[in-house]
Amino acid sequence: MSIEPPRAAIVGIGATDFSARSGRSELELACQAILAALDDAGIDPGEVDGLVRFGASQRRASEGAVAHALGLGGLSYWSEVDLGGGASAALVGHAAMAVGTGAARCVVGYRALNGRSGARPGTSQTSAALEDIDPHYRDFLVPHGLTSPVQMYALIARRYLHHYALPGNALGGVARSFRRHADRNPNAQLYGRPLGPEEYDESEVISSPLRKLDCCLQTDGAAAFVVVPADRAGDLAQPPAYVRGSVQASMANQPGFLYSFVGAGDVLRTPAEEAAGRLYARAGLTAGDVDVAQLYDCFSITAVLAAEAYGFCAPGEGAQRAAAGMFDLGGGIPANTAGGSFGEGYIHGVNHVLEGVRQIRGRSTSQVPGAATCLVTGGMPVPTSAVLLTKDAA
Amino acid sequence: MSIEPPRAAIVGIGATDFSARSGRSELELACQAILAALDDAGIDPGEVDGLVRFGASQRRASEGAVAHALGLGGLSYWSEVDLGGGASAALVGHAAMAVGTGAARCVVGYRALNGRSGARPGTSQTSAALEDIDPHYRDFLVPHGLTSPVQMYALIARRYLHHYALPGNALGGVARSFRRHADRNPNAQLYGRPLGPEEYDESEVISSPLRKLDCCLQTDGAAAFVVVPADRAGDLAQPPAYVRGSVQASMANQPGFLYSFVGAGDVLRTPAEEAAGRLYARAGLTAGDVDVAQLYDCFSITAVLAAEAYGFCAPGEGAQRAAAGMFDLGGGIPANTAGGSFGEGYIHGVNHVLEGVRQIRGRSTSQVPGAATCLVTGGMPVPTSAVLLTKDAA
Repeated sequence: MSIEPPRAAIVGIGATDFSARSGRSELELACQAILAALDDAGIDPGEVDGLVRFGASQRRASEGAVAHALGLGGLSYWSEVDLGGGASAALVGHAAMAVGTGAARCVVGYRALNGRSGARPGTSQTSAALEDIDPHYRDFLVPHGLTSPVQMYALIARRYLHHYALPGNALGGVARSFRRHADRNPNAQLYGRPLGPEEYDESEVISSPLRKLDCCLQTDGAAAFVVVPADRAGDLAQPPAYVRGSVQASMANQPGFLYSFVGAGDVLRTPAEEAAGRLYARAGLTAGDVDVAQLYDCFSITAVLAAEAYGFCAPGEGAQRAAAGMFDLGGGIPANTAGGSFGEGYIHGVNHVLEGVRQIRGRSTSQVPGAATCLVTGGMPVPTSAVLLTKDAA
Repeated sequence: MSIEPPRAAIVGIGATDFSARSGRSELELACQAILAALDDAGIDPGEVDGLVRFGASQRRASEGAVAHALGLGGLSYWSEVDLGGGASAALVGHAAMAVGTGAARCVVGYRALNGRSGARPGTSQTSAALEDIDPHYRDFLVPHGLTSPVQMYALIARRYLHHYALPGNALGGVARSFRRHADRNPNAQLYGRPLGPEEYDESEVISSPLRKLDCCLQTDGAAAFVVVPADRAGDLAQPPAYVRGSVQASMANQPGFLYSFVGAGDVLRTPAEEAAGRLYARAGLTAGDVDVAQLYDCFSITAVLAAEAYGFCAPGEGAQRAAAGMFDLGGGIPANTAGGSFGEGYIHGVNHVLEGVRQIRGRSTSQVPGAATCLVTGGMPVPTSAVLLTKDAA
């Protein structure tokens, strides 16, 4: 869904605090993040005419409820993107498409959840709600005891370690890098909690080979961003982050909703390869042009596979490269520089969009010097999405 | 979200039977309708690379489940449109935007529900699920006993009758016209059940002034359509219906989700006026150019207000004009020519899109001779949508 030359830019970002207990409704969280993003952009709520939200799991902060609570303008575009964590970057793509085609002039994308104090994503209890929704999950996964995402991703991680003959702790570099970034970000949920040198190896096994420190946090919070046409972006309060390209991708015949990649043949194959190829081709960029990345990281294996799929290292090298500091500042591809889902918070990757904008603005707490191009990816191997943000309009 | 000149066309339509008890899951219904639409277009399921579905209430037939069940191609666009019946025409708009911008090449829009044998839209029980979702509904409507749509629309209908000094049975012309159309459509849920001359006046009062025959049906079934780029549309099995323009619209500061228009000041004011103005302006057409209309008709008052908002009669004239045959063949604006939600079935208006295409093809069972432009509207006064379909590409 790329629109070249860039016709859209992110001009405002806002988030709540990220905590284990917000004490607020998801609607309140959404509104706070959206107001913060509009304030950041210097745009009045009455100017908002489009809303894009993260899938069906967020009906408590529906577009209607948000629009009324904030006194937004009449909407001329609204959209949801579903199918799990793969939606995060697609929110940017839908918003860019709306302003790029003239359907709207000012679109807000947002995600709010009480992911720790409310319904916790990733637990078997939360997933049970899918039984009624996804026949694949109900018929083929639950009978085998596969009831939560960590179990599914553990199968992928196990296959990865086996296929590339890696030791059981080979994925530990992901947490180490992301937590280092988090420890520089005062707004991170785990700020001030540096990871001890043995902490990964000693952390509890959740679903072998995945340990607690291979898993994202559970977070209460919200994140929002504001997209306007590129020709308006230069006149606002902040330097724009142009939407250089965006993409959604699933695999042909990819089964089901959230947990459905299991059993689809080669479990190391993901829709990210397709997404990467299409995204780079449309943007006229390559992996070598990317200065910094925000990789969806529900689990360590996800970030590792993303680094490989988007061309920052060869297949099979991701875990070792991560352990060697690939994701650190100064590494091959500094990633998740706000701490990611491992340290900043798990807002289903929409917080990664915000950190991508901060890098383009030069305002990250783990800034990559001169960063001009940032990749932001959605979750996979569920149907996925990705976006390239750039400092320059062309 | 108009894309001019038309960059997209509907080239295939398909539906299941419309019944009170399908005996099939919503996923099965969705798949049957989609396969029928693809067959109609002469397009292989493997070519489909985009899906647009009707809001959050249809998670049992998610994009993922549908894509897997049908062996669709890898998807490069998916989107949901929420906020109730206002979404129907917006499915066309989103699909057109996707193919118009190159995000996808073949997008299917669909809606499936077991609206009679399963969760019945419009009942207090179904609406109760919203309590947890929409604080406006929970806090301001339920305490006053307003728990189902018919009650909300009854307030609007009552205001309409009072404001224009009309008798209590003034809305009866809507059912009479739509049921006449249904009686010519063998696929209509109420085919073969002609409305008796006294049947409206004798029908049960559900929520005064709305009688049973002011209300849509409850239907099990599904409807689907296929959208491709305009430059491909001419090569397929059926004559294309070009998407001449499309629009989504809500009112500024319009509260909440589904039931939230009550109390928003003038209850006769709807977002359809805004939608109509924007749609006609972008398409370069006027109400006088429209040959036939498919008007969202959850209740009789909705179709009447739509006829007024889209310029087919003056405000306050709709009910009387309907009683005088405005919606009949040969009337001022023949409408809901398959029988609409009153006679064909209530697939949340997505079946109206299909009938719009039939009119453009010249294949309706209540064909308007030479119909070249058809308006299809989504529900209102909830946040709404509309689309103009044309026989000619420009």
